[in-house]
Amino acid sequence: MSDKTVYFFAAGESDGHAGLKDLLGGKGANLAEMARLEMPVPAGFTLSTEVCTQFYNLGQRLPESLKPEVMKALSHLESKMGKKFGDNQNPLLLSVRSGARSSMPGMMDTILNLGLNNMAVVGLAKHSDNPRFAWDSYRRLIQMYADVVMGINTNQFEIEIEDLKADKGYMLDTEMTAIDLEFLSNNFLQLVKLAAGKEFPQDPMEQLWGAIFAVFQSWNTPRAVTYRQLHGIPNHWGTAVNIQAMVFGNMGNDSATGVAFTRNPSTGENRFFGEFLINAQGEDVVAGIRTPEPIEALKVKMPEAYLELEKIYKKLEVHYKDMQDIEFTIEKGRLWMLQTRTGKRTARAALKTASDMIEEGLITKEEALLRIDPKSLDQLLHPTLDPKAKKVLLAKGLPASPGGVSGHLVFTSEQAVLEKEKGHSVILVRIETSPEDIAGMNAAKGILTARGGMTSHAAVVARGMGKCCVAGCSALDINPEIETIKVAGYLLRFGDLVTLDGSTGEVFLGEVKTIAPELSGDFEKIMSLADQVRKMGVRTNADTPKDAQIARQFGAEGIGLCRTEHMFFGPDRIDVMRKMIMAPTVDERKKTLSLLLPMQRQDFYEIFKIMNGYPVTIRLLDPPLHEFVPHGEEEMADFSSRVGMPLSDIRQRVHALHEFNPMLGHRGCRLAITYPEIYQMQAKAIAEAVCQLISEEKMEPGQKVLPEIMIPLVAYEQELKVLRSLVEEQIKWVQSEKGIAFDYKVGTMIELPRAALTANQIAGQADFFSFGTNDLTQTTLGLSRDDAGRFLPQYIEGGIIEIDPFISLDQQGVGALVKTAIDLGRKAKPNLKIGICGEHGGDPASIEFFFKSGMDYISCSPFRVPIARLAAAQSALRSKK
Amino acid sequence: MSDKTVYFFAAGESDGHAGLKDLLGGKGANLAEMARLEMPVPAGFTLSTEVCTQFYNLGQRLPESLKPEVMKALSHLESKMGKKFGDNQNPLLLSVRSGARSSMPGMMDTILNLGLNNMAVVGLAKHSDNPRFAWDSYRRLIQMYADVVMGINTNQFEIEIEDLKADKGYMLDTEMTAIDLEFLSNNFLQLVKLAAGKEFPQDPMEQLWGAIFAVFQSWNTPRAVTYRQLHGIPNHWGTAVNIQAMVFGNMGNDSATGVAFTRNPSTGENRFFGEFLINAQGEDVVAGIRTPEPIEALKVKMPEAYLELEKIYKKLEVHYKDMQDIEFTIEKGRLWMLQTRTGKRTARAALKTASDMIEEGLITKEEALLRIDPKSLDQLLHPTLDPKAKKVLLAKGLPASPGGVSGHLVFTSEQAVLEKEKGHSVILVRIETSPEDIAGMNAAKGILTARGGMTSHAAVVARGMGKCCVAGCSALDINPEIETIKVAGYLLRFGDLVTLDGSTGEVFLGEVKTIAPELSGDFEKIMSLADQVRKMGVRTNADTPKDAQIARQFGAEGIGLCRTEHMFFGPDRIDVMRKMIMAPTVDERKKTLSLLLPMQRQDFYEIFKIMNGYPVTIRLLDPPLHEFVPHGEEEMADFSSRVGMPLSDIRQRVHALHEFNPMLGHRGCRLAITYPEIYQMQAKAIAEAVCQLISEEKMEPGQKVLPEIMIPLVAYEQELKVLRSLVEEQIKWVQSEKGIAFDYKVGTMIELPRAALTANQIAGQADFFSFGTNDLTQTTLGLSRDDAGRFLPQYIEGGIIEIDPFISLDQQGVGALVKTAIDLGRKAKPNLKIGICGEHGGDPASIEFFFKSGMDYISCSPFRVPIARLAAAQSALRSKK
Repeated sequence: MSDKTVYFFAAGESDGHAGLKDLLGGKGANLAEMARLEMPVPAGFTLSTEVCTQFYNLGQRLPESLKPEVMKALSHLESKMGKKFGDNQNPLLLSVRSGARSSMPGMMDTILNLGLNNMAVVGLAKHSDNPRFAWDSYRRLIQMYADVVMGINTNQFEIEIEDLKADKGYMLDTEMTAIDLEFLSNNFLQLVKLAAGKEFPQDPMEQLWGAIFAVFQSWNTPRAVTYRQLHGIPNHWGTAVNIQAMVFGNMGNDSATGVAFTRNPSTGENRFFGEFLINAQGEDVVAGIRTPEPIEALKVKMPEAYLELEKIYKKLEVHYKDMQDIEFTIEKGRLWMLQTRTGKRTARAALKTASDMIEEGLITKEEALLRIDPKSLDQLLHPTLDPKAKKVLLAKGLPASPGGVSGHLVFTSEQAVLEKEKGHSVILVRIETSPEDIAGMNAAKGILTARGGMTSHAAVVARGMGKCCVAGCSALDINPEIETIKVAGYLLRFGDLVTLDGSTGEVFLGEVKTIAPELSGDFEKIMSLADQVRKMGVRTNADTPKDAQIARQFGAEGIGLCRTEHMFFGPDRIDVMRKMIMAPTVDERKKTLSLLLPMQRQDFYEIFKIMNGYPVTIRLLDPPLHEFVPHGEEEMADFSSRVGMPLSDIRQRVHALHEFNPMLGHRGCRLAITYPEIYQMQAKAIAEAVCQLISEEKMEPGQKVLPEIMIPLVAYEQELKVLRSLVEEQIKWVQSEKGIAFDYKVGTMIELPRAALTANQIAGQADFFSFGTNDLTQTTLGLSRDDAGRFLPQYIEGGIIEIDPFISLDQQGVGALVKTAIDLGRKAKPNLKIGICGEHGGDPASIEFFFKSGMDYISCSPFRVPIARLAAAQSALRSKK
Repeated sequence: MSDKTVYFFAAGESDGHAGLKDLLGGKGANLAEMARLEMPVPAGFTLSTEVCTQFYNLGQRLPESLKPEVMKALSHLESKMGKKFGDNQNPLLLSVRSGARSSMPGMMDTILNLGLNNMAVVGLAKHSDNPRFAWDSYRRLIQMYADVVMGINTNQFEIEIEDLKADKGYMLDTEMTAIDLEFLSNNFLQLVKLAAGKEFPQDPMEQLWGAIFAVFQSWNTPRAVTYRQLHGIPNHWGTAVNIQAMVFGNMGNDSATGVAFTRNPSTGENRFFGEFLINAQGEDVVAGIRTPEPIEALKVKMPEAYLELEKIYKKLEVHYKDMQDIEFTIEKGRLWMLQTRTGKRTARAALKTASDMIEEGLITKEEALLRIDPKSLDQLLHPTLDPKAKKVLLAKGLPASPGGVSGHLVFTSEQAVLEKEKGHSVILVRIETSPEDIAGMNAAKGILTARGGMTSHAAVVARGMGKCCVAGCSALDINPEIETIKVAGYLLRFGDLVTLDGSTGEVFLGEVKTIAPELSGDFEKIMSLADQVRKMGVRTNADTPKDAQIARQFGAEGIGLCRTEHMFFGPDRIDVMRKMIMAPTVDERKKTLSLLLPMQRQDFYEIFKIMNGYPVTIRLLDPPLHEFVPHGEEEMADFSSRVGMPLSDIRQRVHALHEFNPMLGHRGCRLAITYPEIYQMQAKAIAEAVCQLISEEKMEPGQKVLPEIMIPLVAYEQELKVLRSLVEEQIKWVQSEKGIAFDYKVGTMIELPRAALTANQIAGQADFFSFGTNDLTQTTLGLSRDDAGRFLPQYIEGGIIEIDPFISLDQQGVGALVKTAIDLGRKAKPNLKIGICGEHGGDPASIEFFFKSGMDYISCSPFRVPIARLAAAQSALRSKK
């Protein structure tokens, strides 16, 4: 840990810089950077994240050494601002804000207007010649301090305000006079004493230390911990604390406060985009209590300040080479910059921004690729509302986060979570959201608010989550008490269906048909850049011609996993499949298998055709047979009458097939060791499909159809040896019967620890390996995916594991086996083709691991193909560095 | 492969020796050795096992190069014996016998009397002056050759013999005259022509080559393949073929044939032990058709031959330094040695022989230890009949293989297998057994035959299997057609209960109470020798005070696995356990847990007391909770009325607990992460039991109670860290409450691949590792022990795996993880204590692996403790070499 714990900044003078994010947090580092760039930053200083670590190491105490450093910095701050903290005539007011390495919007505490007390408020009123401003600042300080530092429930404070407004007949807070606010301040001081049993501290230094203490404490509030878990932020990072001179946007109509993005964070359009409020504090904008004006209006209302702001934002974007999210305040016509940071954006905006910035020469192609979060691409692939569908428009709000979703109305975060657990799609409706709503927002399909702008809490969080959101939809008359919404003559209740269009801000009654997403030119451009740099192939997991088609559109270069079992569940097939399973003799079984053969052949034929020119890895039958049989008396009786088989026989066979641990049971290649005729039929169907395609299309042999036959659940070399020759025999037989030759591969899944540990032996029988990381995770961790829901959430909450191992590969455990298998496999067969076809093939962190492990390709579900392409490209780029 | 493929031997001249077993097979190598020792061996030569390999490599053809070598050896043989093969006056007759590296009694073919034909038989009759002998030899040759070489069903041959005997009114085969046998021979020649469509070959050389061919072929008959699988003999070893001059025990009353052991193979008593038949061929003794005389009678009947035999057997035992199983023939008063080999023996005999031979100075203690098959000790631990039990004696036969067993009568091998599968204990009763009965003998608890001696097929095989057997019980009137036995006035049928005493030869009606085995002084002596040399500790898996007691008697040095879950199944406990599981709140759960605490404390107290001075490893609750709840409507309703809990609540909770893959589900330490109060109770019960014992017995702290608390199913270091501190907290609390300090350890099972792969991390939290190789096998192979029965037998039959991985550790897969975990664990913590507590702890091959891997101790079920002690000693001895 460094000796230096306090970093000073003021326009043109700065201890820190943007590179010190780990130490100063994002906000602190960027304030320091703006100060270095001589931008008008109110003077201040940052307590580093190391102080936070110390704070917790000392059992929530501040280190002794901190005091002199803070006093020194404070005195320098005073000299820079020309005011004294604690002065009764012209008091310097301070803000104390958290600032972590990674942004956690609204999650931690902030205290403003520190330095006011019963004396200083009078001085401030005089000096500013604005008693209303002074008293308003004081009542805000008391309320905030009571809440954040003293831990008092501040509901009663709100009630006092509402009562006063009702008494006076005011509609808006701004109607309150200086006298009203003085009255409120005094009331608040009483309330504090009543609730806390002690006075609101009149000593400014006591206020300051209390605020610092509270901000460090807020790092570990439950909601902050939850947020970090959701966003993968380690607990040990800690927060910095920024102490800064206050400037005021609420000093009258020549004052304002605003937030803006250097480009449109929703579309990426290269135009300054933001909002401001005249005569307001910054929190008023973010909290969404008043609906702000668009930034363009500032140009008219305060042209000078706007011009300076324009110069600064442009400079900032060029300096940071990225789109910035800025906060500013105009105090009596003078512009102050309060924050700059990389702007959060939708995937669409990220693509457009990256693409535009390449054109503008601002960043290189590589920088552009590395800048886009692969996971965010998921948003682009979300469905939108069908423009041709009939719709009943209820209202229109702000298009805060794109996508089109339908769901049942819920009014609270808790309801959202509960209904989601029951399997319902829900739309969370709130007058405005607050950080307490995070869990509900996470559970909801879409978020709808009646108040707040494009940068309100709801909008920012929803975009981060990639959720559809319509914000500030003021036409909604929401009664949260009785949980109703009056809108457009309708009365909506809990559970009613509505549809949101996050791209237009429209809200519709009932469910509206959606259509598959169409992708922009920027998407194609970035994807094609990604394809140029990535080293790994990207295939898809697709079982049907339809999925194969979608995946091709998303750029899949072949099929890495075509599960054949799903083909047997069709209504015209399941009975045949069941008869095969129930067959009393091998001959009977062969007879029913011969009925399935033409169906399988047709499936394969179509998939080969769509994948024209790309390899298709077909996994032979994998699940245990009991997955196909009828369950329950009724279904069995149905089946019995349909196929004319005695119910008792069916019951007996179903009973005999029952397994205690199907995951570890009679499935995969084990089925083919006991019932070889099943794989024989499948191999024959594949070979015949290839021959059909070749003969119809008059292709050169081996040119256009690349079947790769994959044997699942191999544990022993000998299993693969036996089944490989069984498959090859069938194929040779078909080839010689049809007089058509073609190339094919036979390989295996590596999805059992034993297969990984003996990969050198297994490689001798395999043309390729494909890691089945789902099952490999289940066996390596001894963890059933279907049953883990009972305890895995507690594991994550309790910090026992950081992330669900079925979402992101457990690199230490499962990853060790993956590496072992690749090393052993390649040692035995240097040209062994190696890929992965588990769910992890669409997870960027896992993809990076697979790349480093030396895999040739990854395969994932069709909608994740773009993510995989970009993540693979990023892995390749990072490895070059 | 060597150039030399044919090895000649004759008394005083020998190409081979006993060290060439791999090449010459057991029989050939020992014949060569006896020849080297100038013992009277009929001259002959051996075709090496490499010829067998070539035979199969050539697609079942003999190599061309073999012919000249055989002709050369044959001519040398002729000169040694002074007779010519194919001579019509004084023909040399040959035997052709298989002889594999490892004995496979009765499994492969033998052909005798080769060289006889229509001409030679007449010459032999004249020259031997014994037409009966000549014609008997000829009809035997035709019958045997027809069966073995020509593949003719020889039932009709037997019918001819029986018809002739009936016509003439004979009771015994020996009553048949030369004329009768000539008549039979001619009939047999006709039968051959009829069945095969060609003549019995008259050319002796054609006979010889046909016989050699047939013996090589017999290596791969289904019954030979099955035998090899049962005994772990690799298929690629192949058999040698021994071609040897015939000598005749059936040349009249001055001739005889016999088999003998240099010591008693059943008890180990150091006295010559065997049987012979006057005027018979060797097959008559082994087949058990005539009941032979004890070897002592030979001393009286043929004193000279006996004296020579005595000299030879003593020389052989000293030469081989082991008990020998010999075959001899006396031809017209002259002794010929036909075979010597290490004698198979019961475990009791093995112990006594080894112990005696140390005393005799014949072998060293180390040799003695290495000579005993650890698995065979299992026999000694089998129960015997309670002498005080009431018994109804049915009959008395020969005590062929020890032990006392009861079971239901079955009459065929198939019945035995079927009934065993249904879960019944069965006694297989046969007039005499043959190699076709192997599967049934394996399935039966005991074997009972009406004919045959102590060296009959039934007796030899049963001893090898460690199965109880009563042989030659001629009082039984068995009718195999209608499946009845008349004996002592009873009529027994299929399914009737009988009891065998294999140590006395008695057969009893119904079931007789058995008592636990008592161990001989030889056992104690050998075990104590084993304890002196072994390096690994041997503990036991015991869940109850009773098991702990038995294990102590068998020499267990502590408990390696005390499963706590079985303690909850008692009738007084299960309802409490269920109430705990059904508890709607944590407080309710804690309340019911507090009822279980005193019960657990008492269990631990007793076990600690029994294990006085030895460590006790207690595994905290492991199985999923649904194993304890009532299943089925009736049981649930019962429980509901007993404890007054609404049935619907019970149903709902039971339903909620259901898991798809319980093996990979919510169990082990995962239970304690979600319900910490369970492990808290268990830790408290352990600590309180220790304190109770210490305070009662006034022991020094840490001296006499060594609790080792084991956390199951750990996958992550963090799990162990959290639960270790939970356990330690409870123990410290009890220690301070009671004012008693004691030492304890907290460790973990390594039973998941991830735990093995991250053992370096986990070791940081563990005082010891105990490998749970059962679950580690299930997860590493992805193989559910409960479900594998559907396909594992086919895996073994099909040669995909050699041995059930739940019986003997899969060293390549699971073993690799074991080694990795030990390496990583010891690297992180050099003094880490490491053991194993899976079923493999009682398997000798696995024990050798564990020793080589560096484990400190093994733990197995109480009855396997002696096996483990000996196997551990053998591992240590072998590692010294």
